[in-house]
Amino acid sequence: MINVAVLGYGTVGSGVVEVIEKNKAEINKKSGEELNVKYILDLRDFPGDPYESKVVHDVNVILDDPEVAIICETMGGIRPAYDFSKQALLKGKSVCTSNKELVANHGPELLRLARENKCNYLFEASVGGGIPIIRPINYSLTAEKIDAVTGILNGTTNYILSKMAAEGVDFEEVLKEAQEKGYAERNPEADVEGYDACRKIAILSSLMTGKNVKYEDIYTEGITKITAADFVYAKALGRSIKLLAMSREAEDGSFYAMVAPFMIPVSHPLHGVNGVFNAVFVHGNMLGDSMYYGRGAGKLPTASAVVSDVVDCARHIGKTIMCFWDDEDVKQTPVDDIRHRFFVRTKAEAERKAVDIFGMMRVVVADVKGEYAFITEEMSEKEFAEKAEQLGCVLNRIRLEG
Amino acid sequence: MINVAVLGYGTVGSGVVEVIEKNKAEINKKSGEELNVKYILDLRDFPGDPYESKVVHDVNVILDDPEVAIICETMGGIRPAYDFSKQALLKGKSVCTSNKELVANHGPELLRLARENKCNYLFEASVGGGIPIIRPINYSLTAEKIDAVTGILNGTTNYILSKMAAEGVDFEEVLKEAQEKGYAERNPEADVEGYDACRKIAILSSLMTGKNVKYEDIYTEGITKITAADFVYAKALGRSIKLLAMSREAEDGSFYAMVAPFMIPVSHPLHGVNGVFNAVFVHGNMLGDSMYYGRGAGKLPTASAVVSDVVDCARHIGKTIMCFWDDEDVKQTPVDDIRHRFFVRTKAEAERKAVDIFGMMRVVVADVKGEYAFITEEMSEKEFAEKAEQLGCVLNRIRLEG
Repeated sequence: MINVAVLGYGTVGSGVVEVIEKNKAEINKKSGEELNVKYILDLRDFPGDPYESKVVHDVNVILDDPEVAIICETMGGIRPAYDFSKQALLKGKSVCTSNKELVANHGPELLRLARENKCNYLFEASVGGGIPIIRPINYSLTAEKIDAVTGILNGTTNYILSKMAAEGVDFEEVLKEAQEKGYAERNPEADVEGYDACRKIAILSSLMTGKNVKYEDIYTEGITKITAADFVYAKALGRSIKLLAMSREAEDGSFYAMVAPFMIPVSHPLHGVNGVFNAVFVHGNMLGDSMYYGRGAGKLPTASAVVSDVVDCARHIGKTIMCFWDDEDVKQTPVDDIRHRFFVRTKAEAERKAVDIFGMMRVVVADVKGEYAFITEEMSEKEFAEKAEQLGCVLNRIRLEG
Repeated sequence: MINVAVLGYGTVGSGVVEVIEKNKAEINKKSGEELNVKYILDLRDFPGDPYESKVVHDVNVILDDPEVAIICETMGGIRPAYDFSKQALLKGKSVCTSNKELVANHGPELLRLARENKCNYLFEASVGGGIPIIRPINYSLTAEKIDAVTGILNGTTNYILSKMAAEGVDFEEVLKEAQEKGYAERNPEADVEGYDACRKIAILSSLMTGKNVKYEDIYTEGITKITAADFVYAKALGRSIKLLAMSREAEDGSFYAMVAPFMIPVSHPLHGVNGVFNAVFVHGNMLGDSMYYGRGAGKLPTASAVVSDVVDCARHIGKTIMCFWDDEDVKQTPVDDIRHRFFVRTKAEAERKAVDIFGMMRVVVADVKGEYAFITEEMSEKEFAEKAEQLGCVLNRIRLEG
């Protein structure tokens, strides 16, 4: 029997307990041993809950119990999750987490502690809850040099953009509806400003490069400025607007990551990823394109990912599973030098000036009055910013991918 | 250093050697040790080939060399691949294969031999060359009860159907073109009759159930009867026609698998899987839907999958990785009892009779002259066959999914 403790009995934590109970036949078989939830750490009591008797308020009860081999950290936030995780690893207890904030901030250190103490720090649930993506990168794409990862990594923003595309309504309206339905937080900033996707692409980029990609250095732009008019143009172009989190490593070793809304064509496999579904598109030098698709969040999908980590820990008691994510920070190409094509909307009277400044361009005709819209040649962010400044009346601009 | 031998220096075998050479920095790092291709078994000589000196003609040179720890079986076919694999495993050498024929026929026995001899029999490349799917099922979806797998598992047929959909031409014409381009074999039977997809879904179904799903018992229907007219109707219905390989396990434990052309709606994630790309759609009871997408075949994608198995073997020398695929055969629901809705085309004059026989139905209007087409209610294959027999003039019928 392998004893497990769950830190935090909120949505994901209670999901973990539920998954272990509901699928115990499969899980015990695949673990090679019976899993037993021995403790649940929470500040609250849960009178009447079937697991009431397992609830403890002091983390030391768990840390000091040598019978506990695996800990699920489903608390979220940096503190006290960071301290608890560190202490657990120092005692040789494996930690499985859904906490992207903590993984993005302290991944390499916690992985090192796991190695030093012959246990594991696993975080499948930290990126794309219901999409197996960490393990495919670490275990499946091992014969590849991965040079590009492109993800739709946030369910809330993808739900909002999908709705805007389908119904032709503006951001604020859909956000309000999403909040009412519980698909968006009351304080939606982390989602709609792209911060959540930024943490996730930092984690995936670190695994892709084997070094540390600091999320603070990733250019991040949210979806709050996307309007119904943008979707009118997108449709005319046979494209959709998606919040993409991407990273690219060139052959010369230069690297960049970015989170921003992009227009992608109908032929792009990410085009059909709608609603609360997320997907990660990976390019390797031998395999070419592959894609991983599933629910980006949600209690049971996220909990299932945590429990799959628990099974992996159970299969590797006393042994650290290989994971390459060094302390060394990756040098990121400054955003100024990143190159894309841009879709640009200006006032109708700016046409002549726009042609003078941007030269070769493709005009975009759509049913929007009083505007002139076009797609630029590929250019650097810096060059674009300078030209847009010179033009003066840019209503919106969205990058193009594919 | 870990010594590797490659059996069969054809397309996949030479790809394996190429991948190990080209990505050696990544692969050696991820293996934890340097991989060295020590032997290549082939009946032919390869004068001028950079690996010429490694070619041997006698398998015993490889089997008798205690330095060889891992063997890549990329020969295909049952004999002599079966004997070579068995002998290798009996000597404690791990075997990594792309041979779906052999895996579908002898998987449980070879897995047992691997367990008994503390080595591994891995077969990621046997299903969907460039799609990591075996490892995600075995390592990632471990907290799930998987109850449905639906795949587009054959590149040739998907290429043909995608072309037919895009260009409105008939099967024979596209097949000829695909043969000229090398996307279809000169003898295309294994692909177009669904036999290849059948082997692959048998393998995935066995991993899904943990028991043995005999491919001989899977109802298999190819795409040779699909016509341009069928696609006219499909378009009118907002659907596409795909060769699906599916398996389903109901809550009562009953199981069926089937390979056949299906009409699927635009909203289905498999709808956008076109050309030589393949995908596997998996449903788990906690995770819900997830999908894995990539190149279904091709030299380097398939070789990359074989090498990812080699890396896995290198990480687990002396230890057998868990894989659940018992000898016990799964009881398959007889095809007569499988239930679907059917799209049916008849001659225009059969309208009244069709309504009398099939009762409630949805009429399908499309620009095809002299025909009457409809979609039935859900019914068993047996019931459908009886009614179709009674009706007498069915021009074609295609099952519906989703």
